[in-house]
Amino acid sequence: MTAACQFCQIAAGEKAAHVVLEGDETIAFLDHRPVFPGHTLLVPRRHVVTLGDLPDELIAPLFTDARLLARAMEGGFGAHGTFVAMNNRISQSVSHLHVHVVPRHRKDGLRGFFWPRQPYASEEEAAEVAARVRAAVDACRQDC
Amino acid sequence: MTAACQFCQIAAGEKAAHVVLEGDETIAFLDHRPVFPGHTLLVPRRHVVTLGDLPDELIAPLFTDARLLARAMEGGFGAHGTFVAMNNRISQSVSHLHVHVVPRHRKDGLRGFFWPRQPYASEEEAAEVAARVRAAVDACRQDC
Repeated sequence: MTAACQFCQIAAGEKAAHVVLEGDETIAFLDHRPVFPGHTLLVPRRHVVTLGDLPDELIAPLFTDARLLARAMEGGFGAHGTFVAMNNRISQSVSHLHVHVVPRHRKDGLRGFFWPRQPYASEEEAAEVAARVRAAVDACRQDC
Repeated sequence: MTAACQFCQIAAGEKAAHVVLEGDETIAFLDHRPVFPGHTLLVPRRHVVTLGDLPDELIAPLFTDARLLARAMEGGFGAHGTFVAMNNRISQSVSHLHVHVVPRHRKDGLRGFFWPRQPYASEEEAAEVAARVRAAVDACRQDC
């Protein structure tokens, strides 16, 4: 636990939140500024900063609960689907890993990615980028 | 495998893609219309439609590789952070679960959520919504 971290404080019961799920390793609560009502943040109780920092033993507990929340949104909560996302470092408002689980509905006015997307200029460019990602993955398997 | 599914075809080597990672249970390849170059899609080789459908035994393999990709983007690929996301059903372009791993940079022009967000009208409203999500989670623990 990091004393200054608001999500650690919520996990410790020291800061109020609208809690929707409590597990041994996880806790989930409403985002106070939701994209849509029900927008939930799922966090490991332990202070972990990003997905890259998540220890092996927390992967299954965290994402099993992400699955549970996604199922619940489409189940009793009545959503048609979900958006499940993590911002790591950039656009990460609180430096404690949090999985956003946002209920979605048909014609809810959002596009999946509101952001501009464009194809690679050529197959050669795509192949070059892929080679760089692949090299980074291979390096990371050894030493990350 | 579903014959008509393009991600099953990529996993089977029957459709070309710029592959960046291959595991026993997973495969990852470049999105052909990236938010930023290097934008990768990680999928289970098995045909699974949404996160809610992901079987227990694929949770750790899939999200361990999501972590590997997030680390690699910040490692050898040189990103400052990542955006990791799944669209389940709504805004899901291909009906085979895919985890977007998007490299992010400082001042890359994106906000974490480009989408409008607003607080609950009152604490009472938030508490009511939280109770509905919690009830859906509890129901799902029994029967989802």
